[in-house]
Amino acid sequence: MKHTSYKAMDCGAAQALECVGEWWSILILRDAFLGLSRFDEFQTSLGIASNSLTRRLKHLTENGLLDRRIYSERPKRYEYILTERGRDFFPVLVTLTKWGNQHLAPNGAYVQLADRLTGKLLEPILMDKSSLLKITYENVTVQPGPGATEEVLARLATRKVKNEQ
Amino acid sequence: MKHTSYKAMDCGAAQALECVGEWWSILILRDAFLGLSRFDEFQTSLGIASNSLTRRLKHLTENGLLDRRIYSERPKRYEYILTERGRDFFPVLVTLTKWGNQHLAPNGAYVQLADRLTGKLLEPILMDKSSLLKITYENVTVQPGPGATEEVLARLATRKVKNEQ
Repeated sequence: MKHTSYKAMDCGAAQALECVGEWWSILILRDAFLGLSRFDEFQTSLGIASNSLTRRLKHLTENGLLDRRIYSERPKRYEYILTERGRDFFPVLVTLTKWGNQHLAPNGAYVQLADRLTGKLLEPILMDKSSLLKITYENVTVQPGPGATEEVLARLATRKVKNEQ
Repeated sequence: MKHTSYKAMDCGAAQALECVGEWWSILILRDAFLGLSRFDEFQTSLGIASNSLTRRLKHLTENGLLDRRIYSERPKRYEYILTERGRDFFPVLVTLTKWGNQHLAPNGAYVQLADRLTGKLLEPILMDKSSLLKITYENVTVQPGPGATEEVLARLATRKVKNEQ
């Protein structure tokens, strides 16, 4: 099947998917957030073939989410550390995990977040930074941003038509 | 290549990825959030082959994110409407889009969220529902949840070792 790149799409979500690469890459990032950094640690955790893991780590490194650093000169070995761009991906993983725990964990959440200092359990929700309005599908709308292109405007125009129905 | 299912993994994020299916499915959900519901609307927006779109809509319907409803009896035609489970996926799309707009939109955000009632622009951030602590990689930690399994505990144990280094 022909691979259609999402790069052609003017959309933050599509660009993000293209940049991260594949589902497995999200689980690599999950493990990096849990503190894993070395090839064999990722491999043990994920159970994927070496060549697949190599390709995915390379993709994440080239796209600026991980930084490859030498941790042993002899033999030469590398570890993979989250960059700022990689760390900024954390909220995506939090919301994805929350949704999975909410809808797909038969015996309750697998994991939960806690305050690093106090250990108090946290319930992550999306809010507007200044007004603290809870951000849900029902109470927000999407508008063109400063970088909106013709394609974006066309997509949002579709929405307006639907809203008027 | 052998397809390894994430279903075997006790992890909310992995279960979520398995359930949603593929990258394209997230863009179908994006379009559904923008109000699209009919096969030809998704196809026009995404530009993917009919058989691919059919398969993805079927997957999202079977996994309870979309509800398939008849909107025309003659000829028989269906539309795809977000279920509650599907609508609950909205925060994932918001955080993914925010990350893409932040790191991959050369001319500024393609789209931005606004309050549906007032039109005021919103800046989505993840906070704890009761304490309003901002949730970032730096200030939170991950703990076993009520549904934690041996696998989850082993994965979190890896983290603890790393933290002590």
